[in-house]
Amino acid sequence: MLRLDCRFFLIALAAACSTPPPPTAADPLAAARCKQLVERALADNQAITLLGGLLQAAPKRLSGSPGSDAAVQWSLATMRAMGLVNVRAEPCLVPQWVRGEERAELLGQTAQPLRITALGGSIGTPDGGLEAEVVEVRSFEQLRELGEKARGKIVFFNRPMPRALRSVGQAYGEAVPQRSNGAIEAGKVGALAALVRSVTTAIDGNPHTGAMHYDDAVAKVPAAAIATADAEQLAKALQRGPVRMKLVLGCTQGPDVAGANAVGELAGSVTPERIVVVGGHLDAWDLGDGAHDDGAGCIHALEAVRLLQACGIRPRCTIRVVLFANEENGLRGARAYADTHRDELGKHVAALESDSGGFAPLGLTTSLRDEAAAAMQQKLLPLQDANAGTFLTGAGGCGADIGPLHNAGVACFGLLVNSQRYFDHHHTAIDTLAMVNERELALGAAVVAYTLSVLADG
Amino acid sequence: MLRLDCRFFLIALAAACSTPPPPTAADPLAAARCKQLVERALADNQAITLLGGLLQAAPKRLSGSPGSDAAVQWSLATMRAMGLVNVRAEPCLVPQWVRGEERAELLGQTAQPLRITALGGSIGTPDGGLEAEVVEVRSFEQLRELGEKARGKIVFFNRPMPRALRSVGQAYGEAVPQRSNGAIEAGKVGALAALVRSVTTAIDGNPHTGAMHYDDAVAKVPAAAIATADAEQLAKALQRGPVRMKLVLGCTQGPDVAGANAVGELAGSVTPERIVVVGGHLDAWDLGDGAHDDGAGCIHALEAVRLLQACGIRPRCTIRVVLFANEENGLRGARAYADTHRDELGKHVAALESDSGGFAPLGLTTSLRDEAAAAMQQKLLPLQDANAGTFLTGAGGCGADIGPLHNAGVACFGLLVNSQRYFDHHHTAIDTLAMVNERELALGAAVVAYTLSVLADG
Repeated sequence: MLRLDCRFFLIALAAACSTPPPPTAADPLAAARCKQLVERALADNQAITLLGGLLQAAPKRLSGSPGSDAAVQWSLATMRAMGLVNVRAEPCLVPQWVRGEERAELLGQTAQPLRITALGGSIGTPDGGLEAEVVEVRSFEQLRELGEKARGKIVFFNRPMPRALRSVGQAYGEAVPQRSNGAIEAGKVGALAALVRSVTTAIDGNPHTGAMHYDDAVAKVPAAAIATADAEQLAKALQRGPVRMKLVLGCTQGPDVAGANAVGELAGSVTPERIVVVGGHLDAWDLGDGAHDDGAGCIHALEAVRLLQACGIRPRCTIRVVLFANEENGLRGARAYADTHRDELGKHVAALESDSGGFAPLGLTTSLRDEAAAAMQQKLLPLQDANAGTFLTGAGGCGADIGPLHNAGVACFGLLVNSQRYFDHHHTAIDTLAMVNERELALGAAVVAYTLSVLADG
Repeated sequence: MLRLDCRFFLIALAAACSTPPPPTAADPLAAARCKQLVERALADNQAITLLGGLLQAAPKRLSGSPGSDAAVQWSLATMRAMGLVNVRAEPCLVPQWVRGEERAELLGQTAQPLRITALGGSIGTPDGGLEAEVVEVRSFEQLRELGEKARGKIVFFNRPMPRALRSVGQAYGEAVPQRSNGAIEAGKVGALAALVRSVTTAIDGNPHTGAMHYDDAVAKVPAAAIATADAEQLAKALQRGPVRMKLVLGCTQGPDVAGANAVGELAGSVTPERIVVVGGHLDAWDLGDGAHDDGAGCIHALEAVRLLQACGIRPRCTIRVVLFANEENGLRGARAYADTHRDELGKHVAALESDSGGFAPLGLTTSLRDEAAAAMQQKLLPLQDANAGTFLTGAGGCGADIGPLHNAGVACFGLLVNSQRYFDHHHTAIDTLAMVNERELALGAAVVAYTLSVLADG
């Protein structure tokens, strides 16, 4: 899931607006179809097998890496094996950032190693690393007040992700600017580097990477995330007196290279020229295997289409699976899709993305409002029986990869899941298959499948 | 959670009945109170600390074991430290079943160890264990058809827990009779032992224990559960030809010993003689630490009362926390509570149990129906903002421990959570603290707290 996480923030905003109560009972035929999809998803239990396949073929698939090609090849082969048509890689250029060596330690009396990881897009430190005093801040305002006192130092952004918010997306949205923009703010005051508290409410030893930005008008400084447990220790050490730190980041940015969206279709039975897009993003941060972020979303899309086929449901419109390139650090795949298909966007009926993890589904977000939202909610009533009846309206793009489609006027939907655990492993080494529950993943696919059956019959 | 699992089955039945749509919007003051409780629960994050305390003080707390006393003592000390009043142990007699040595292996050409565990209440095997041929059945009918062919053999009940049902409680209810009554049916046909496929949809190496019964009119035979992965292997071996097995169970049943319910109260501010019971069960199967079953339920009750105090909410009625003894293999604590307080049951306004694990809350089940249910649903509307607005009416006792209260006419409620993972570790060695997510546990406590604030002001 993306750096700025507009989607989660919009979900949080949307959650504040109450949706009208469901007007009537679910249509019995629709309810039966929904039940059939749920039972088939659980009985076949294919989603976890598919996810295991992707993670075995391409455990590391950051944009521009060899694994990213392997992920596209696995996706195309899987789509062909499922009987999808028009299976192809749609090319785009993607950035090529390589992590390299990374380590940090406190020096002097407080000597100890720190668990850190470079933020995606960071420049490296000078050869041999850098050493400097650490200065802690909790906000950009605090840093600006420090001003010259931060010059030549490592700025330690230690604002915790707010724990009290039930919406972890909203909490993430509040804490993530120090990761996204910390290097810019550190550069403005002449600091040597930015060290950012990992964006999670968990207190543990896993540093969380993620995207960060530079401003061409500001000196670029390297940026790393520190595990929350080590951030707490560092803050305590700073209370006792000055602390010096050594930071080594070997990351480098190469030239853009070829990447691709993986695309395949289930042809519509009545109006095949009309299109419903469903997808997730195929790239993932390199520390873990991207099982939840966003292997799960890609598998939701693939398994949903398999379920429709397996249950003999033939939607009127074409369902186009798009597994997007480069969501994490560039959105090049999202832009390339909208650009490649710009003449066809008027025939896009809807777009649905899953990018909140493979947890138990709770419902959907949608860009629809008012009467259109109410009419759709009526059609989605059967999801209540799957405990997935939440319907948050007016929620913007509903997914970073379908954001350009939203901007082009396409009705957008996002799968809403129980994300309370999501930021425990988001962008870390422990975002692995073991964290995914097979039943929860399957239920998500069934909810996507039912929603597609509604959207593609509209 | 109990052997026969009436509650889960009733939930499944109730889920089939649609509840009326929420009549109006939530009361703003009630919504603010609910939000306050949720945010406080997440900010303080005490539930996971409390659960860690219980599991450290009494990781093994099967009825009649030394750990069961330690659990009661920890509970009383914790209630006193929280400022509860009338804190006491209410005694009852509990059974004393001791597991002892347990192992099994296939013999001859198929020689290999099997991962098994004795079912709770089983007799032991004769000294040195027993050896016999294995015969597989998928139902009691199949066993009855086998008749004399099963005499002298080990009956392998290999009916899988149905995977396709979204309600894992219903799936459990369908599969669990072979565990509860398999030994009786095996005894009827003169078999030597019952070997039961573990009741879970997961395929892995963890055998799941649980309660089983004997019928005094039928010869008693020892009974064990086998891990699902080993059950699959055993079934394959049986397809190739006859299989002999050795089974050693050292379990013994001692005389009943002293046990106790742990009880404490938050005194009502207006009508302290009127009582709302909230609780879980303090006993747990001995293989793991009972973190989800039902450490989580006990902590939901304790943390809910702490939250009410921390938020300055003073309910009109007394809230009585009851951590019940012996749910797993006897329900002696449940019966003792109803018996001890029989003269006071008319003053019991409501009872709420949490015994489905410490997962993200989805809502509540209730024994209420019709107008009473609709009125309560209106008061519980603020839970929708915590994604916990599901309200399943007519759901019977809502918890094994409060079943006797339901039978006495007390309105009952059960915490409904996302249980998709529950049976992955239910009654196994991996029901440990690591399986519990701190945010999900805290949210459950907040939902219980809000519900108590409604019930105790009614």
